Amino acid sequence: MPFDMSLIQRGARLRRSAFFAATQRWGAQAYTVYNHTLFPICFGDLEEEYWHLIHHVTLWDVAVERQVEITGPDAFTFTNLLTPRDLSRCAVGQGKYVVITAEDGGVINDPVLLRLGENHFWLALADSDVLLWARGVALHAGLRVDIREPDVSPLQVQGPKAKEVVGALFGEDVLKLRYYWFLERSLDGIPVVVTRTGWTGEVGYEIYLRDGAKGDELWERIMEAGRPHEIRPAGPSDIRRIEAGILNWGADMTLDDNVYEAGLDRLVDVDKTADYIGKEALTRIRAEGVKRKLVGVEIAGDRLEFNAVKWPVLSDGIAIGRVTSAIWSPRLRKNIGYAMVPITHAALGTPLRVLVPEAGEREASVAAKPFLDPEKRIPKGR
Amino acid sequence: MPFDMSLIQRGARLRRSAFFAATQRWGAQAYTVYNHTLFPICFGDLEEEYWHLIHHVTLWDVAVERQVEITGPDAFTFTNLLTPRDLSRCAVGQGKYVVITAEDGGVINDPVLLRLGENHFWLALADSDVLLWARGVALHAGLRVDIREPDVSPLQVQGPKAKEVVGALFGEDVLKLRYYWFLERSLDGIPVVVTRTGWTGEVGYEIYLRDGAKGDELWERIMEAGRPHEIRPAGPSDIRRIEAGILNWGADMTLDDNVYEAGLDRLVDVDKTADYIGKEALTRIRAEGVKRKLVGVEIAGDRLEFNAVKWPVLSDGIAIGRVTSAIWSPRLRKNIGYAMVPITHAALGTPLRVLVPEAGEREASVAAKPFLDPEKRIPKGR
Repeated sequence: MPFDMSLIQRGARLRRSAFFAATQRWGAQAYTVYNHTLFPICFGDLEEEYWHLIHHVTLWDVAVERQVEITGPDAFTFTNLLTPRDLSRCAVGQGKYVVITAEDGGVINDPVLLRLGENHFWLALADSDVLLWARGVALHAGLRVDIREPDVSPLQVQGPKAKEVVGALFGEDVLKLRYYWFLERSLDGIPVVVTRTGWTGEVGYEIYLRDGAKGDELWERIMEAGRPHEIRPAGPSDIRRIEAGILNWGADMTLDDNVYEAGLDRLVDVDKTADYIGKEALTRIRAEGVKRKLVGVEIAGDRLEFNAVKWPVLSDGIAIGRVTSAIWSPRLRKNIGYAMVPITHAALGTPLRVLVPEAGEREASVAAKPFLDPEKRIPKGR
Repeated sequence: MPFDMSLIQRGARLRRSAFFAATQRWGAQAYTVYNHTLFPICFGDLEEEYWHLIHHVTLWDVAVERQVEITGPDAFTFTNLLTPRDLSRCAVGQGKYVVITAEDGGVINDPVLLRLGENHFWLALADSDVLLWARGVALHAGLRVDIREPDVSPLQVQGPKAKEVVGALFGEDVLKLRYYWFLERSLDGIPVVVTRTGWTGEVGYEIYLRDGAKGDELWERIMEAGRPHEIRPAGPSDIRRIEAGILNWGADMTLDDNVYEAGLDRLVDVDKTADYIGKEALTRIRAEGVKRKLVGVEIAGDRLEFNAVKWPVLSDGIAIGRVTSAIWSPRLRKNIGYAMVPITHAALGTPLRVLVPEAGEREASVAAKPFLDPEKRIPKGR
């Protein structure tokens, strides 16, 4: 039972992205809301969009990834205070996938951070008001920083033919970008930042538009460059991101889950000498170990439709955890997803039972993430 | 042209309110998203719901007004730091409509604040993550506070027959509540706080449920008590709130507008001696005067439908401001709303021109707020 309902928004509380008109013109069928902004998540059939992403190339309006921009003489020191990643290892021109942490180690957000200058950072945000968090922290931090939401609107170009599209628009240098690095470019006067990043595990790029008035023009230029490569507009693929082991903030982890519970250990640089918010808590948690953890799960049986309610994970008939995301993978021909479970049930292969509304109890087991090897893009084990 | 589109949300990123099942059962037709939570905004026809609110009584699920709860030995001092209102004048058992201000005087949120104890506060939030702001501020504030989102879910019971419904459920004492005061009650084991507040200018109450597991039970109890008074479920009435001069955070004011630009002068206690965030900025702005201001507007001609784009306010063909909200009032038989305009165009009666998409330019003028006297509930001037 997909969760499908009508949205009426007559007022101007929710924002439209710089690409809103383009997404309407190209037939967006459904929007959700993300960072107070309308987010096109489907242009037709979700499974068709998945296959198109796998075989060709897709264009997504992810301008809802609003940026927090941090500048000023102490911008490096301040930004380094917000995350367990050691930003002294992030060069100008480089990006990092980071967590923004609360003092108790909770995950406030998991943006892509770009370092545009020695003291110039962007955080491309998941769905929480990090602008308010950062400004609140800055209030008494004694550091000279300027924190604002700039006019920056990202698009994603994702899929095996993404290189051809981005190469045709921005030239060969962009194709040499290493994962998470970026280049600043101008496309006939349209100012952009092109990054080798994405939410898929496929080859992909993000194009950060720096002038919201040119959203329509940029969108059409990309669609034109992509025409020989069968580009089509699409929403973010929940199927592909789960296959790739990518988490969705707000669903798979929240402020109530710490970095280690979310299984994002690799985003903590344990040898970071500089202080950061949450360092004490995370050091303690690392020493003590976590009581629960987000794990990959495979749920047995035929195709399931996950809706907006997290399914209970049962042990002896009692709920011990929750499935946070689940989806049918058409390539694996399996129901895959994530669950937050007690650490006693987190080892690979642990059998679980999941209570699925309207489908009853299903056998499940803890499985390795990613479900599909991101390099070979074939089911693991083959 | 109403803004009407389908929302598909297959994942569990967006939250459901404690009353979600009840709103589905009672026929909610449309939802928007507010504080990361689904918000039922219509159960049928918006204008019918408006008339029902005026003549009878309506029940709204406003559990999206998530609370920030502040406790701990320094909770009073800390909460008093967040707002230009002087909370030393807020008794235990009393509430206040407040603004939460940034250091530059910008409006972060405009919650109803309830003081449940000397050092126990709730902020019933508009759509921004004040939890993150407050926790960020607390980080280096040197005050002993605990800040969290509690399990609290408000409902609104609004309309001239609201007294009968609330009286039947909670007794006579509740009917004696002065505006913005509250009582803690238990309804056969359902713990609630009943406040004399609302978003209408009609007589109304809010019932804050303190146990999310009892959402269904509370909803049904209220519907049952309201049956003799023709209660019906409804969404918040944009018509009625604009008639009453009530603002909608995110549309009529944002972080980019300061308190005086938003015209919320009455929410600043100029004689407040305690320090608070934004005090310096607001003192300066008050002395210098604002350059732009949110005013009431009447837009001439037949019925207009406001959509998600703020209409330009023109002077000599050039955009000088924006209409932030507008609606057809069936009682006034006029298009009324708000606009942010230069202070040179803010005096009552100033003629304006508004560029309405698909309707062309319309005559307009600056009008007094509220548009309908909240006491007499008849068009002003009659």
